[in-house]
Amino acid sequence: MPTGYNGKILNVNLTEGTFTEDTPAEIVYRMYMGGSALSLYYLLKEQKPGVDPLGPENKLIFMSSVISGAPLAGLTRYTVASRSPLTGAFGEAEAGGFWGPELKMAGFDGVIIEGRSPQPVYLWIKDGKAEIRDAAKIWGKDTGEAERLIREELGDNRIRVAQCGPAGEKMVRYACVVNELKHANGRTGMGAVMGSKNLRAIAVRGAERLTLANPEKVREIGKKVVELIKEAPLAQNFKKYGTPFFVLPLNTSGILPTRNFQAGQFAGAEAISGETMTDTILVKTEGCYACAVQCKRAVKVEGKYSASPEYGGPEYETIASLGSFCGIDNLAAIAQGNEMCNRWGLDTISTGVCIAFAMECTELGILTPQETDGINLRFGNVDGMLEMIRKIAFREGFGDILAEGVQRAAQKIGKGSEKYAMHIKGQELPMHDPRGKHGLTLSYAISPTGADHIEAPHDTSFLTDNLMLKAAKPAAVLEPTTAFELGPRKIRQFVHTQQIWNFFNSLGVCNFAAAPYTAFPLVTLAEAVEAVTGWNTSLYELMELGERTITMARMFNIREGLSSKDDYLPERLFESLEKGTPREKRIAKEIFAEALRLYYQAMGWDAQSGVPTDGRLSFLGLDWLIPKK
Amino acid sequence: MPTGYNGKILNVNLTEGTFTEDTPAEIVYRMYMGGSALSLYYLLKEQKPGVDPLGPENKLIFMSSVISGAPLAGLTRYTVASRSPLTGAFGEAEAGGFWGPELKMAGFDGVIIEGRSPQPVYLWIKDGKAEIRDAAKIWGKDTGEAERLIREELGDNRIRVAQCGPAGEKMVRYACVVNELKHANGRTGMGAVMGSKNLRAIAVRGAERLTLANPEKVREIGKKVVELIKEAPLAQNFKKYGTPFFVLPLNTSGILPTRNFQAGQFAGAEAISGETMTDTILVKTEGCYACAVQCKRAVKVEGKYSASPEYGGPEYETIASLGSFCGIDNLAAIAQGNEMCNRWGLDTISTGVCIAFAMECTELGILTPQETDGINLRFGNVDGMLEMIRKIAFREGFGDILAEGVQRAAQKIGKGSEKYAMHIKGQELPMHDPRGKHGLTLSYAISPTGADHIEAPHDTSFLTDNLMLKAAKPAAVLEPTTAFELGPRKIRQFVHTQQIWNFFNSLGVCNFAAAPYTAFPLVTLAEAVEAVTGWNTSLYELMELGERTITMARMFNIREGLSSKDDYLPERLFESLEKGTPREKRIAKEIFAEALRLYYQAMGWDAQSGVPTDGRLSFLGLDWLIPKK
Repeated sequence: MPTGYNGKILNVNLTEGTFTEDTPAEIVYRMYMGGSALSLYYLLKEQKPGVDPLGPENKLIFMSSVISGAPLAGLTRYTVASRSPLTGAFGEAEAGGFWGPELKMAGFDGVIIEGRSPQPVYLWIKDGKAEIRDAAKIWGKDTGEAERLIREELGDNRIRVAQCGPAGEKMVRYACVVNELKHANGRTGMGAVMGSKNLRAIAVRGAERLTLANPEKVREIGKKVVELIKEAPLAQNFKKYGTPFFVLPLNTSGILPTRNFQAGQFAGAEAISGETMTDTILVKTEGCYACAVQCKRAVKVEGKYSASPEYGGPEYETIASLGSFCGIDNLAAIAQGNEMCNRWGLDTISTGVCIAFAMECTELGILTPQETDGINLRFGNVDGMLEMIRKIAFREGFGDILAEGVQRAAQKIGKGSEKYAMHIKGQELPMHDPRGKHGLTLSYAISPTGADHIEAPHDTSFLTDNLMLKAAKPAAVLEPTTAFELGPRKIRQFVHTQQIWNFFNSLGVCNFAAAPYTAFPLVTLAEAVEAVTGWNTSLYELMELGERTITMARMFNIREGLSSKDDYLPERLFESLEKGTPREKRIAKEIFAEALRLYYQAMGWDAQSGVPTDGRLSFLGLDWLIPKK
Repeated sequence: MPTGYNGKILNVNLTEGTFTEDTPAEIVYRMYMGGSALSLYYLLKEQKPGVDPLGPENKLIFMSSVISGAPLAGLTRYTVASRSPLTGAFGEAEAGGFWGPELKMAGFDGVIIEGRSPQPVYLWIKDGKAEIRDAAKIWGKDTGEAERLIREELGDNRIRVAQCGPAGEKMVRYACVVNELKHANGRTGMGAVMGSKNLRAIAVRGAERLTLANPEKVREIGKKVVELIKEAPLAQNFKKYGTPFFVLPLNTSGILPTRNFQAGQFAGAEAISGETMTDTILVKTEGCYACAVQCKRAVKVEGKYSASPEYGGPEYETIASLGSFCGIDNLAAIAQGNEMCNRWGLDTISTGVCIAFAMECTELGILTPQETDGINLRFGNVDGMLEMIRKIAFREGFGDILAEGVQRAAQKIGKGSEKYAMHIKGQELPMHDPRGKHGLTLSYAISPTGADHIEAPHDTSFLTDNLMLKAAKPAAVLEPTTAFELGPRKIRQFVHTQQIWNFFNSLGVCNFAAAPYTAFPLVTLAEAVEAVTGWNTSLYELMELGERTITMARMFNIREGLSSKDDYLPERLFESLEKGTPREKRIAKEIFAEALRLYYQAMGWDAQSGVPTDGRLSFLGLDWLIPKK
């Protein structure tokens, strides 16, 4: 069995219009593997602190991983990373689809972009060669039109395109990167960074076959995983309903985010549920490269509202953020809103949270229709919500204020509106309520990218004390909990699961295809890394990679000026949900503070400052990050 | 495949003469598994702090593990643990042989002894039943005679006997427990604790077959490991020369402990080498239960000095401690000294270090022959060394002083002799010089049992940066090093290997049969645990068990009054070896101090006090050890 891993990184300087190739030493691949960790490696090593996120010095990194592109379910994700224009902290978002594997087949593990092109361009990578091409024709166009034009110009319909949309061109601070019109690197404004560089798209096409150290073992694992997916109840739910499957159980549990986190139940939940979607507008289920789960949706809507299947269909996050969170129960309109976000390149979560914020301000009289371009932005205003998406994408009128993100918008609006801006570190909260999902309390507060729902699993109780890290177990998201508990045992489970999801983000593993959520046992994942790379590895090494990833992101944020003060929750989350009922849900401030202290210590960080200690950095092989004395 | 693990612990109260049985919950087995960790679990949970180590309240624990007794090479070791009468800290020693597996086949994973019998007794355990029997006949007898009498009395020649010898009866503070006359739980005075309880022996015999969750997988692993042992060069050296194989290469490297650590080369090295032993006095190579390595020796000496093969033969540690460390190059006499220690139940390391200490004091005039019972204890005095062993074992004359251990002996002798007492935390140093084996610097200083050579591998360089935790690689003990280096990278390697050896001590894995030294890959070890117990486990869980073990021992010591002040090296080790030559070896104090700080932090301990933080205790599932505020 051959051992070792060779790969190439493409460096692009858009200011100069030049390329260089980097072939990292094997030890670099071994220590960082890809995705988050390998992106952080380059950001920490090669970018000086404090650069303007929307300036030419900020690097924009597209990074796949050592196992991405192997014919195995759930290993297709790639990372886009940079200093975030939304938070000033580590910016990072993953996406599935086919783009990541295609990049690898085109000969590169990653692309690191710096500088700013004098005029709009796109990047064309094929079979190990790269070219900067004029993007005048596609600048300003919808993503669908841009993709069509690129494929036409290059004469190949199978080209995979990752792009920012018009929202990225306009540097909306939560503009996303979207590939194949429907797979979004959604969060932290990576599309804005792309737009700031006058880079509209990266088109890739490759014919190179991945070298597998042990192809037979890869095939064997592949077969096993497909079998496991067939048997996993949650995977079957994902196939049938997609992520919108979660709408109804969360509503039943009283934690479906509703009207800007004012409530946890929404009267219109049934109308916007996964079941309703499957029964009404769903036309096709889809999946990512080599994946058997097929959790993706394609929907079609015609009539007053419209949505085309080429833009996919709304995920749970989108249904909640444009739906219940804005008090909207019209699934067709939500589907259209989803398409608008994909068409123009907006993160649906941040978009929904910004609009809901404006809605609550309107309800309270902090904002008036005069200030919001004549739109009466009350909760439930379907057409207002849709119009506001357009205004944000193109920075029109009041949309220009919301395009700055909810934190900056509230600062601009003033009048006490900050209280209703649901963000952490400047990033809008996802559609999961920590008052019911206690693990998220910590996860939201300490996530280096700001409020983030894929930093660690939401309910850690499936990871039982007996530490069955290998087993696939369905998530217990429905467990009704009232008493808020974040004691030492939860800390233990939280850190374990945070390590897991963080090595997922460095390996490009999808959270839905792998344990603990569905089917891919963690030990088998380690075997897959071994079969693909030839390294003698183990789950231990992957868990350490997880901790290394978390710690590098922490170090990045510290050098960008963040501190333990930034590990907080919005005040609203300390208010009770369903107060006075047996289902009351509330987070106790003193328990949260104690959990934060225990978490810092559990990670080997200073208990007060939350700064990783020199010794723990040493243990993780990150001694190069020890501050010079 | 059946899952779960059931086992029984036998509790013996010698004061009352009563028994109870304990069937720990599966989660207890899963978290602690056996050996060190499971012993610490009981010591920390059920014994109050500060008990007299030689009083009835001190528990004496014999503990095997969940995988002990499986028909796999290298999994036979068991732990004897207690509060040490030598150090006042955690006392613990492992031994191989057949006793551990036999205990399991007799129906018990462990035996916990408390109280003190009114008269000498021994314990007889057979097929799930236990009995306290009168030991009047065997009290005071040599171990060989005692074993013969027990087997005779019980009418079964295949009974396995672990016992303290006369030295244990006399509570020599470094008396050992010895099974089959030659496998010693050598260190920290566990034989003295046994003697203090008037318990001379534990005889076991069992016919129960071990339940294996997946017998086929166990067989498959067994075959693979035997193949790997055949291919491992170091295993082959162990088979041919035993541990004495190390004498010559260490001498060549200038780190064979000589004349109380005054030198690192010994003129008589050739005469006491493994090669010489194999060529002259070796009569048989032997091994432990189910092991293919066969590193054990049986030697025969007749003439002025004598040694019988029933007492085995000297290990490397013994050859060095009674040989080069005392300036003695007579292999026959060393073999006799080894037999005397096994016959009377003395730890050979501590015995040799105590005698060498007295020899240096004699050379310096601090001690005179009048004070040492007329024996002129100069380095190289062969008969004086042998006579002193006898005097220590029976606490005769000056032997009574040395029987207290080198720390207490030096305190008693005074006159500046403390400087020549080679101990840490009160335990005598093993036969490895950290001035050449840099990893040992930390290992000696922080080992919870005092100076200990099996806390972590001696040279960690075989564990390369690319973290091939799975691969078996031969140890690089011969690497000549001059510059003392203990930087962040070494800390990383040290903590990894310390975790490995600590989970070995909790699982009863022999350091010679498993990776990284010889053959048993670590991932395969995890598979073995899975095949035996049915648990879905992984190397990650075992590495965490390693850290849990280290941390529990630290917490035990803290409650017994130890602190970071006890993490030191004897001053002599900061003196140069081969000063002024290109081979000069020295430990820089400031590097050592910095390494200690980094180590504490790497473990998630307070950087100053070395106390594990509440958060890291939580992470390890040890929240029950968080001090009450």
